[in-house]
Amino acid sequence: MKAINHWIRDIRNTMSVFISALLIVIPGAYAKADPIVLKDHGSFYVGGRTVTSAAVTGSAAGLAGSSNQGDITVDQMYVRYQIPVGPARLPVVMVHGCCLSSKTWETTPDGRTGWDDYFTRHSRPVYLAEQVSRARSGFDATSINEVKLGMLPPDALPYIIMGSHEFAWVGFRFGAKPNQAFADEQFPIAAVDDLYKQMIPDLNGLLPADANPTLNHLATLSKQIGGAVVMGHSESGFFPEQAALVDPTGIKAIISLEPAQTCSTSLSQQQLQTLAKIPILIVFGDHLTDAFASFWIPALSQCQTFAASVRALGGDATVLQLPDAGLKGNSHMMMQDRNNDKVADVLLRWIDGHVHR
Amino acid sequence: MKAINHWIRDIRNTMSVFISALLIVIPGAYAKADPIVLKDHGSFYVGGRTVTSAAVTGSAAGLAGSSNQGDITVDQMYVRYQIPVGPARLPVVMVHGCCLSSKTWETTPDGRTGWDDYFTRHSRPVYLAEQVSRARSGFDATSINEVKLGMLPPDALPYIIMGSHEFAWVGFRFGAKPNQAFADEQFPIAAVDDLYKQMIPDLNGLLPADANPTLNHLATLSKQIGGAVVMGHSESGFFPEQAALVDPTGIKAIISLEPAQTCSTSLSQQQLQTLAKIPILIVFGDHLTDAFASFWIPALSQCQTFAASVRALGGDATVLQLPDAGLKGNSHMMMQDRNNDKVADVLLRWIDGHVHR
Repeated sequence: MKAINHWIRDIRNTMSVFISALLIVIPGAYAKADPIVLKDHGSFYVGGRTVTSAAVTGSAAGLAGSSNQGDITVDQMYVRYQIPVGPARLPVVMVHGCCLSSKTWETTPDGRTGWDDYFTRHSRPVYLAEQVSRARSGFDATSINEVKLGMLPPDALPYIIMGSHEFAWVGFRFGAKPNQAFADEQFPIAAVDDLYKQMIPDLNGLLPADANPTLNHLATLSKQIGGAVVMGHSESGFFPEQAALVDPTGIKAIISLEPAQTCSTSLSQQQLQTLAKIPILIVFGDHLTDAFASFWIPALSQCQTFAASVRALGGDATVLQLPDAGLKGNSHMMMQDRNNDKVADVLLRWIDGHVHR
Repeated sequence: MKAINHWIRDIRNTMSVFISALLIVIPGAYAKADPIVLKDHGSFYVGGRTVTSAAVTGSAAGLAGSSNQGDITVDQMYVRYQIPVGPARLPVVMVHGCCLSSKTWETTPDGRTGWDDYFTRHSRPVYLAEQVSRARSGFDATSINEVKLGMLPPDALPYIIMGSHEFAWVGFRFGAKPNQAFADEQFPIAAVDDLYKQMIPDLNGLLPADANPTLNHLATLSKQIGGAVVMGHSESGFFPEQAALVDPTGIKAIISLEPAQTCSTSLSQQQLQTLAKIPILIVFGDHLTDAFASFWIPALSQCQTFAASVRALGGDATVLQLPDAGLKGNSHMMMQDRNNDKVADVLLRWIDGHVHR
């Protein structure tokens, strides 16, 4: 029986490599209907530390059989990954933006292939990192419970952001006014309600702004997996750069998608020198002057200043506006736009052209 | 080129079916190292409704370019699924318990195969449903923001539960006292810190107890995918039964893992008759009298009473204690226990023996 199992496993492995070879030889030759063959997939946590909470629930009685004081784990980061069969290529770590989770990178609102699978089908191991204090990474609810119990005043509550529909429509540049889409809008507007379902409370207000644990964990994760392209979006748009400033060892390239006024223009020469050793691509979509321009134009400008500073030190830093690559009408949610495959192709070409492992 | 693509796709599909056939013919013949071949996988939301929030942030100024009042989506349920290639078998919907997320069913704390993949490798499409108000399903933070802004008093804050380490150790029956494990404990104790990272705030206190939207969504999801076995755990242990009472159409079988004193003993005859048409398996682990017995013994007793009521109406309801099936030392987290494959095999055999599609 054992011999048969080994024989079956050998056949299966051989076939998987063959399937994988087909995927590599003819890029774009698959449809969503094709099976996806993974060498491995799964999930794990990075980081996390134990603290003693004085209020694990909002009732002084605590949990049945236990006290309302107890140890909890905080600051952990949930990661889900998938590794295609075939020759190993440089992994891509993706981290989502404000008021969103790693769902950002999965099946699009209108049911098309997300970037998780698109990159994997193009031979990239993909790691979706969920920001500390969001979704499956959890958050420390102690201060909320302490306010409920009268142990702290109401202003000790964390600052929480929910993205309203009205904010998302204009802020993400689906149109200049809520429910009026640009004529060439690439976001799948008919499925916008599904995007609204993806929007969840953002508790980053709980974290120290200058030492968000997610930065450390992105650096650790990248090193742990033997080096990676790290891609951030919006709120996390500049996280890859900040993670590299914590520890650049594993960060082989950086892609910053529409940093939301987070491109720092006040880094030290030493910090810029660290970043000048890493290829950096910063990407913006279309309609920057047509919706929420008072926010997006300065955001673009900051990134241009930052990139110029890196280039001045011999670095490889590019700010790309997608219309300049022939892609029109892209929103802030370019990974979900109708032409998300075309945008991904731009990134894949850049990675292959700029990153030398 | 198009013809070549079709030809390649045909070859790939043929091979995938062959691979799948091997998986079916020799169950247990795979190792974690074998590639996983999926006909499809991805994620989507079920349900959700729009409400107007008077406080989308904790600042009266609101978000840049937008008001602090706005529409948000609440009560949506995030679902991640994976479908193996090969002949379609009855899908399994899994829903996690208190203070946890769908991570429950993924890679175990010590890095072994979770039930998501174990069931998929045994030809079952798997749907992981994340409870409304948890993790990627998000929650309505309006009341927290309103308290922060002085619009509501502190006691209007939601009741939030975090599972402390001390509570989890004894409540989940790793041992009778924190950090002292039972000699035959099946939970992978050396990796308990990873379980603690999975424990996140539970905001079910925001939801109406008698009309938790998750129940409706589980019924909808099961119907939408053409029928399913629905499996709940602990806090959600009785959710499959409750979902069937909302709409039994899609619920072809029920597995309740250690309902946490949630087996109802006060259902009407009409409700019991509905449940008597669905095969029901209720499973408990070991050491019920050795740790947190004051909770687990009544929990077991309630389920035995419930199952007897269903059987009295001609139903197929079984309460199984794993030691009676020869499996010793299982904890409350049986899907992560070292013998989680053996526990899964018990469930798979029960499904195949009791469910006639």
